[in-house]
Amino acid sequence: MDNNSNFLAKYIPNAITVLSLCCGLTSIRFSITEEWKIAILLIILAAVFDFFDGWFARKFKGGSNFGAELDSLSDFISFGVAPSLLIYFWALSDLESLGWSISLFFAVCSALRLARFTADIYLTPKPIDLNTYFIGVPSPAAAGLSLLPIFIYIEFEFSFLRNPYLNLINLSLIGFLMVSKIPTFSFKKINLSKKYAPWIILLVVIICIGLISNIWLTLIILVIIYIISIIYTVMINFKSN
Amino acid sequence: MDNNSNFLAKYIPNAITVLSLCCGLTSIRFSITEEWKIAILLIILAAVFDFFDGWFARKFKGGSNFGAELDSLSDFISFGVAPSLLIYFWALSDLESLGWSISLFFAVCSALRLARFTADIYLTPKPIDLNTYFIGVPSPAAAGLSLLPIFIYIEFEFSFLRNPYLNLINLSLIGFLMVSKIPTFSFKKINLSKKYAPWIILLVVIICIGLISNIWLTLIILVIIYIISIIYTVMINFKSN
Repeated sequence: MDNNSNFLAKYIPNAITVLSLCCGLTSIRFSITEEWKIAILLIILAAVFDFFDGWFARKFKGGSNFGAELDSLSDFISFGVAPSLLIYFWALSDLESLGWSISLFFAVCSALRLARFTADIYLTPKPIDLNTYFIGVPSPAAAGLSLLPIFIYIEFEFSFLRNPYLNLINLSLIGFLMVSKIPTFSFKKINLSKKYAPWIILLVVIICIGLISNIWLTLIILVIIYIISIIYTVMINFKSN
Repeated sequence: MDNNSNFLAKYIPNAITVLSLCCGLTSIRFSITEEWKIAILLIILAAVFDFFDGWFARKFKGGSNFGAELDSLSDFISFGVAPSLLIYFWALSDLESLGWSISLFFAVCSALRLARFTADIYLTPKPIDLNTYFIGVPSPAAAGLSLLPIFIYIEFEFSFLRNPYLNLINLSLIGFLMVSKIPTFSFKKINLSKKYAPWIILLVVIICIGLISNIWLTLIILVIIYIISIIYTVMINFKSN
């Protein structure tokens, strides 16, 4: 029984991470062939796998150095390289070198953030998820923010959102937010005590129903709520300092 | 003076790693537009930067956790993802899903190897480059091995080397070699004592002249020498066990 649980703890999270990595890499393939919706869905699927892999590793206390390293590589592809290439092919390719340099900038910021985050795991004696806030925007959230213009474009067909300069500014800004030291809300910190459990389950159910009924609108709402949460935490910390 | 040296030790290796990462990412861009030679040269440039970044970090004893993490991300792009996409677009894309799965396999093997390698840095008390052998083929060498068919194709125009099944077998085999535990020769171990220094400098000069005069032929020779070195170390270890 214990052996079985060890087996789960050791291999399942890493197997899920590899799935997440494959989704991220395959998203690049569909960005190249301009199948935007599939490319985006694969990044979202990578995020779902990434969430479950972290959850599994914590649940079975199987978090290993190897797992943390693999997770960092997978996150870099799925939330750094794949979104930057997607936005490049969707909106920036007309700008040629300028467009490419901004895509590179976004990917490099994502690498710097992930390298800092993973190196910190080895430094902190306490588990990282006890912290109330992340420092800077984490890479999966940055991927969501960078893709907001394309979500709105798909749902409402506002063609100006495909403007290269708009996406260029958006990508640069999110790049800076990733490496910045602004505090951002960590959803791992959500109070999971029994008192709140029914409400959280209800919320998750509502989000799932939303994603199934109208995925693009739901994603737009989620990203906007996240942007509001950033403004809120920044304002709170600005006041308290 | 000391401050200056600290500054060099801290920032130069990471800046070189970022350059290496940018070369790897840009190689992907040129693979997509089928400019094979530029894509290959960018991977080689990434390898050169990767070598100097490691050398700088050792020289100034500035190897940090952050640097190791960033290096792992950069290596994954330059020697895992970029070569696998290059070979996919050059030879495997006609096989569609099958071709893509082999490219994914190569990239995943590279991730598994780099994750193990980076996680081990934190475990071993002694610096990793004191080991005589690497365990398995390191990712820059794997990139060189995976690109051998295209080197020969460019130099000698043997069109059968672009055969998808040949490249499929080649990529799979190298994927296995990366995660395998076979011993491979570490060139960091080369004896740099004063006695041998002139010969090593001569060798480096010859390689540089070769690369400048006929880069493809020199690369073919270097990769073939590396293959012979793998066979040699495997045979030596097979005998001694």
